[in-house]
Amino acid sequence: MDERSFDLVVIGSGPAGQKAAIAAAKHGKRVAVIDRPSMIGGVSLNTGTIPSKTLREAILYLTGFRQRMYYGRDYSLKDEISVPDLAFRVNAVKARELEVIRAQLKRNRVTIVEGTATFVDPRTLEVKTASGPARVRGDFVLIACGTRPAHHPDVAIDGKTILDSDQLINMDPLPRELMVVGAGVIGLEYASMAAALGIKVTIIEARPTVLDFVDREIVDALLYTMRRAGAIFRLGEKVVTVGKDERGRVVARLESGKEVHADGLLYAVGRQTNADRLDLAAAGLAADARGRISVNEHYQTAVPHIYAAGDVIGFPALSSTSMEQGRLASSHMFGFGRESRAELLPYGIYTIPEISMVGKTEQELTEEKVPYEIGVARYEELAKAQMLGADTGLLKILFHPKTLKVLGVHAFGDNASEIIHIGQAVLAFGGTIDYFRDTTFNYPTLAEAYKVAGLDGLNKV
Amino acid sequence: MDERSFDLVVIGSGPAGQKAAIAAAKHGKRVAVIDRPSMIGGVSLNTGTIPSKTLREAILYLTGFRQRMYYGRDYSLKDEISVPDLAFRVNAVKARELEVIRAQLKRNRVTIVEGTATFVDPRTLEVKTASGPARVRGDFVLIACGTRPAHHPDVAIDGKTILDSDQLINMDPLPRELMVVGAGVIGLEYASMAAALGIKVTIIEARPTVLDFVDREIVDALLYTMRRAGAIFRLGEKVVTVGKDERGRVVARLESGKEVHADGLLYAVGRQTNADRLDLAAAGLAADARGRISVNEHYQTAVPHIYAAGDVIGFPALSSTSMEQGRLASSHMFGFGRESRAELLPYGIYTIPEISMVGKTEQELTEEKVPYEIGVARYEELAKAQMLGADTGLLKILFHPKTLKVLGVHAFGDNASEIIHIGQAVLAFGGTIDYFRDTTFNYPTLAEAYKVAGLDGLNKV
Repeated sequence: MDERSFDLVVIGSGPAGQKAAIAAAKHGKRVAVIDRPSMIGGVSLNTGTIPSKTLREAILYLTGFRQRMYYGRDYSLKDEISVPDLAFRVNAVKARELEVIRAQLKRNRVTIVEGTATFVDPRTLEVKTASGPARVRGDFVLIACGTRPAHHPDVAIDGKTILDSDQLINMDPLPRELMVVGAGVIGLEYASMAAALGIKVTIIEARPTVLDFVDREIVDALLYTMRRAGAIFRLGEKVVTVGKDERGRVVARLESGKEVHADGLLYAVGRQTNADRLDLAAAGLAADARGRISVNEHYQTAVPHIYAAGDVIGFPALSSTSMEQGRLASSHMFGFGRESRAELLPYGIYTIPEISMVGKTEQELTEEKVPYEIGVARYEELAKAQMLGADTGLLKILFHPKTLKVLGVHAFGDNASEIIHIGQAVLAFGGTIDYFRDTTFNYPTLAEAYKVAGLDGLNKV
Repeated sequence: MDERSFDLVVIGSGPAGQKAAIAAAKHGKRVAVIDRPSMIGGVSLNTGTIPSKTLREAILYLTGFRQRMYYGRDYSLKDEISVPDLAFRVNAVKARELEVIRAQLKRNRVTIVEGTATFVDPRTLEVKTASGPARVRGDFVLIACGTRPAHHPDVAIDGKTILDSDQLINMDPLPRELMVVGAGVIGLEYASMAAALGIKVTIIEARPTVLDFVDREIVDALLYTMRRAGAIFRLGEKVVTVGKDERGRVVARLESGKEVHADGLLYAVGRQTNADRLDLAAAGLAADARGRISVNEHYQTAVPHIYAAGDVIGFPALSSTSMEQGRLASSHMFGFGRESRAELLPYGIYTIPEISMVGKTEQELTEEKVPYEIGVARYEELAKAQMLGADTGLLKILFHPKTLKVLGVHAFGDNASEIIHIGQAVLAFGGTIDYFRDTTFNYPTLAEAYKVAGLDGLNKV
């Protein structure tokens, strides 16, 4: 059997795998990336970040969502938005991004091995390729195999009306009423898109609260905004069975005795990793109940030359953090000397409007007994938000009342995921809230929210 | 005659006047602001920043400009975009912002005196109000009287087909062909809006180059993009006369002998200040030929208790900088101890796409004999730009090849005026280009351009 040796073998070509491979290759290392031909780019490109965020932009545009401030709640650019309208853009962006990823790997002379991999021993993988099995050996191995939607025996996913998040984009026609089971990031992102499309959405979540790592005020604002757009939340309600009613519609029976009926159901309760397909035991490794692999702060597993990064190691499972983990893993293997500052990791949640945050939350500061004051700007105060028709939003800066140091920034609204990086830089350099008072911001911008929030905060101390 | 005394009298309620008044009032000072009733909010609100940037957003939306990447060059959301379509949003935002400004002044107990002001002596102003003349006396006076379009004796502005920039928004119907005389910020902003609307635009400028304070590569990219959208540039061409041709269309005769014909002409060659209306001599002051008032670094005029800020002091004449000047003037008068860092002033130019910059340009660094290296990201490399259909753009980071310190950031593309503030913060804290390599950016965002440019720059050193 053909066997080739590399400095690094990466299992999975998603964000973590790509960036790890490229970082190593840029330093002259010989690198192979193994993935299934249909999954080059990973979940991020194929069913996750790229399609869902493209879909979101298409929906925001085609529904004229931001224009409703001017033209009324029922304004829509197209009267009937169809799946082909939406799929057109998603496919264009996916094709383009696939091209970018392939070109980048090729330019950096990374070998792509197409097939499914299993461990033979801690340094050797067998790959089932279209032309038969092949062996690939690496001095280092990075497991970045990603995840797939978790299924539940009582919820029979049929890919037509009862779907997981990988299948949602193929739902044709669009349902008039949709149930979303699971109010994690994925469930909420799709639920808010559906609500923007005018679909009647019911979100069912077993836990009484959502997005516990996010600022409470921002979660409240999101729920308020989604409810105003017609969404119904059933929190603290457990789905017992899912089936069809006498009219052929989907029905979910809840533990409380309630029944929810809809044309479609999106099952978005967690994801499980693909580690079960790798024969980890042959590498001397084991995964936890959900398939997650434990790593130390350098992304090393229990077997020192095997690293793991991306969704397979669990929270936060975002493309952005996976990329960084991949780069850091590669850097640690070969000693490039990159460092990470976990406290500066931003989170971006692409609900409508979007949420982004960096640094500490009020809850964390309270637990750590760190006093704080808050400067707030509301989007309705910003000229730019008026111009964009995007007046729902807020920016909160948490800072120390004595030292004035910025401790955390929390944003909700249009472009929150962009402007959070302004606060992130100030936080990184240990800046104080005066920075925002003393800095000139372009006018009109949403970034001006920092000025408004800075002045508001300083008025309080 | 009624005479009232204040700690501070502000002439003009535009961005500089408002912010100066509010800063003083927040510190317990008694403040009056004088302005004509029709001009509360200044040029910024009435004919400048607010209407023009609202118009720009409306045009970007109604023309589906960003969608052309997907649907082809000729795609337009509305087949025929009319002036009422555009005016509707402009008026809504203006009304809302006027309300915001009035409420803010009222909440801070700033007295608004409606009328036109002239100096009686260095501390006293006479105001012609609807109910007769009144006198207002201030221990300090801030001149923030703003500007009006400059006219030229050979160009007979008629407000119908030959217009200045204050009148453009009233042009109905929209012309099919438009000449823009003057390629300054205002001329280029309106020219790029007209081009986005599908109007055939010819821009005539006496100087051979445009926007000399902006990075050359970005100016080239702007001209390239505008030409691709159908705009014609006649640089280094002087307009000698403007009249009507036999078909009743506007004709401009150029010094080179060329004739340019169009349905409308926008005259945007500079602005002159309103200082000529204040009887400056009575205050012991004089203005230059274009009506500008000289100030020192604290915005003090030659008469120490009289300050000037905003467009009346000249370049850069942006709402953002005027606000800051107003705050700083107020702070200096009453000793609040605010400081300004002129090297951190951002510039935002709302062409399509927009330009923004902070710090040094390549030209400046070359003149100052400071070596630099460049990290570049092109929008076409960014997943978010693909999703937005906004793949024209670039971000340049200039940094020192030895110390790696960031020296300047130059952006062209969607949201450039927002994301520039990320680079501004890094510059403010003396950060190095490694910051962008070591920082995690939300994905997908346009802010990610910093990561791409950072890695590109570091690959070069």
